[in-house]
Amino acid sequence: MFLAEVRASAEPEDESTRRILDAALEAYQEFGLRRTTMDDVARAAGIGRATLYRRFPQKGDLVTAVGLREVRRFIAAVDVEISKAPNAEERMVEGFVAVVRGLRENQLLNRLLSSEPEAVLPGLTLHGGPVIALARGYLKEKIEEDQRAGLIADFDAEPLAETLARLIHSIVLTPDGRIPTRDERQMRAFARTYLVAWLRI
Amino acid sequence: MFLAEVRASAEPEDESTRRILDAALEAYQEFGLRRTTMDDVARAAGIGRATLYRRFPQKGDLVTAVGLREVRRFIAAVDVEISKAPNAEERMVEGFVAVVRGLRENQLLNRLLSSEPEAVLPGLTLHGGPVIALARGYLKEKIEEDQRAGLIADFDAEPLAETLARLIHSIVLTPDGRIPTRDERQMRAFARTYLVAWLRI
Repeated sequence: MFLAEVRASAEPEDESTRRILDAALEAYQEFGLRRTTMDDVARAAGIGRATLYRRFPQKGDLVTAVGLREVRRFIAAVDVEISKAPNAEERMVEGFVAVVRGLRENQLLNRLLSSEPEAVLPGLTLHGGPVIALARGYLKEKIEEDQRAGLIADFDAEPLAETLARLIHSIVLTPDGRIPTRDERQMRAFARTYLVAWLRI
Repeated sequence: MFLAEVRASAEPEDESTRRILDAALEAYQEFGLRRTTMDDVARAAGIGRATLYRRFPQKGDLVTAVGLREVRRFIAAVDVEISKAPNAEERMVEGFVAVVRGLRENQLLNRLLSSEPEAVLPGLTLHGGPVIALARGYLKEKIEEDQRAGLIADFDAEPLAETLARLIHSIVLTPDGRIPTRDERQMRAFARTYLVAWLRI
């Protein structure tokens, strides 16, 4: 799943696809991926099995579509928080807080990590290259916007974007530690001291 | 497994324990944890089952002892590399290179990640707090040594230590990315630009 793919995707136009995705998300959050059948989703969405299979031939296609929509919504929410910040330093701080909070509060991610770790951990770790690439691509765009505006120095944004992505990657996989992820005031203080330092490379 | 515990542990004094640990490490690297029985280890070490069980009552005790020794040896090897560096900046660079290379080349870790991910991933992610704490404790000690020597500013070393630990955590779990972990010259260039910036906090 790459950033261009996420950006190119859009909220589904037709009402029945929207209902399918909503029903699937709700079922995945409540029962997990493994225990949710295509029939469960069709029933909850109030549509016929034929319609569901025409739109999503396999369970994996539906899971991917739900995941893609979650990522797109997540990015849109982070964009809003970053756009409110007045300068490059605060964009770093608010972006970090929005990403960590958004992932910590994401119901689908938390449900799957706690009840089906064997299903999601390999894709988030050993085969997690695309996840890192997605986050890196997004963060690189944000850093380069401030570079083009002359607000921060013109270093290569990609390694910094990846380092930030990896810090967040580790925090999501292993929240237990000394980076305060539950207290936003403390999270901002951490970001202001330790992450903003990077913008002065 | 905490840093004090690792430091307090020592190479086993008696020859039979050493043989047990050597045989167990070799078997784990070759066959994995799951497929290695206590009998396999006793046989390979050339000692009686009774002696093995007296020293390590359960398989888990033996696994822990082997892991503890691996961590202690790993830290000793990194200490050597760091001690050769001439200043705080180079200690950051050489420490990063030694840690990433050491983990990438660790046979036991790689064997378990590739053949028994379901056995090791949860302990390295969802329940990975002690692993992060161990790395944080070690890195904090190193940073504080340079602070006491007046070589870098007197900021709180713990958040920086944890951030570094988490960067490495993510790289070990998901090597695929744009941080060059197979080319030491490129790894040094990355560390010199992006990690050394932290010492100027």
